[in-house]
Amino acid sequence: MVKPQLRISESTIHRLSIYYRALNRLERENYETISSKELAKREKLTPAQVRKDLSFFGSFGTRGLGYPVTELRDKIAEILGINRSWSVALVGVGNIGSALVSYKEFQKQGFRIRKIFDNDQRKIGSNHKGIIVSDADDIVTELRDSKIEIVVIAVPSLVAQMIVDDVVRAGIKAILNFAPINLKVPDDVYLRNENMAMELEYLSFSLCNDEAQL
Amino acid sequence: MVKPQLRISESTIHRLSIYYRALNRLERENYETISSKELAKREKLTPAQVRKDLSFFGSFGTRGLGYPVTELRDKIAEILGINRSWSVALVGVGNIGSALVSYKEFQKQGFRIRKIFDNDQRKIGSNHKGIIVSDADDIVTELRDSKIEIVVIAVPSLVAQMIVDDVVRAGIKAILNFAPINLKVPDDVYLRNENMAMELEYLSFSLCNDEAQL
Repeated sequence: MVKPQLRISESTIHRLSIYYRALNRLERENYETISSKELAKREKLTPAQVRKDLSFFGSFGTRGLGYPVTELRDKIAEILGINRSWSVALVGVGNIGSALVSYKEFQKQGFRIRKIFDNDQRKIGSNHKGIIVSDADDIVTELRDSKIEIVVIAVPSLVAQMIVDDVVRAGIKAILNFAPINLKVPDDVYLRNENMAMELEYLSFSLCNDEAQL
Repeated sequence: MVKPQLRISESTIHRLSIYYRALNRLERENYETISSKELAKREKLTPAQVRKDLSFFGSFGTRGLGYPVTELRDKIAEILGINRSWSVALVGVGNIGSALVSYKEFQKQGFRIRKIFDNDQRKIGSNHKGIIVSDADDIVTELRDSKIEIVVIAVPSLVAQMIVDDVVRAGIKAILNFAPINLKVPDDVYLRNENMAMELEYLSFSLCNDEAQL
């Protein structure tokens, strides 16, 4: 069991996800060890940053030899909780929801969509990749009786808070929200928001602040 | 013109996007000023973090009065480059690409999809929200002759590098990639990767490291 790592920042956790993917690639390329310098170069980070991030998890690297690729990858998977599978429910099979049902990265990292809900009568009962869409009106009872651990919300902003309230009432403690709205959840529920425009804003910031263009 | 803000970290830029949205909501709620404490509370950050982030942009807050909501919102929009519109091209209208064409947040922040490319003969020539899908084979010439500033890649991993090479050849300097693969671009091209599984990994990390559950 991993001990609580309360000092780990949000950006460190994201970098762990990035290291995990980098180490997977390195393993496929038959690397046995990797230096912080090489790992940093591949991911456009500094070696000091890599060493600092990985130092949270005890002494892994051997000076001169680097980090053992497979062992470090497995350790990060354990820390991120992706060395197991998770049962996920999706609410909303509009444009984004439909894309998520087919999104291979979820499966690859162990996130299995096991239930789908919608409030559109034309969608209820339809089959999405082997899952029959349930009525969103039944969400509290259906989630309570299930082993669902994480719920993904891909509904219009107007109904998102109502859906989240139901999801919380059903006892779910982890929610990923795609609706562009600030949802309120109790303190003991983990809520993450995915807003795909934010990465574009990073790019527009970069273009506006590009030294070469000023 | 904004001066280069080279000390601004990736996480600060993301928080600016978050402040921007929060300030928009505050304006709609008729707030004229907001304290760092209240802004922090709404976004689950610390007041010190908010003050530090906003201090990059000169002295905005007045002790005791807080930040002027509209002025700060407009300043952040200028810094992020979203006080104007951007011409965007999308490559790939599969599940994710189709969802992005209808994604209202892009439009709302000024990111206008003006061109769509695909290599599927059944999709080329079809109409997506008023845009006729072009042949991906013509991407270099079509982008060169256009005013496109940012390209969004939503193609399968196997062809993503080839597409990106074409996009770079056409002179594009900002790319948002949805393919779960590490793309190589020259140093003068800004590349951001969107991997929607990473937010789920944050949640699984949180569930695994939840003090209450240990």
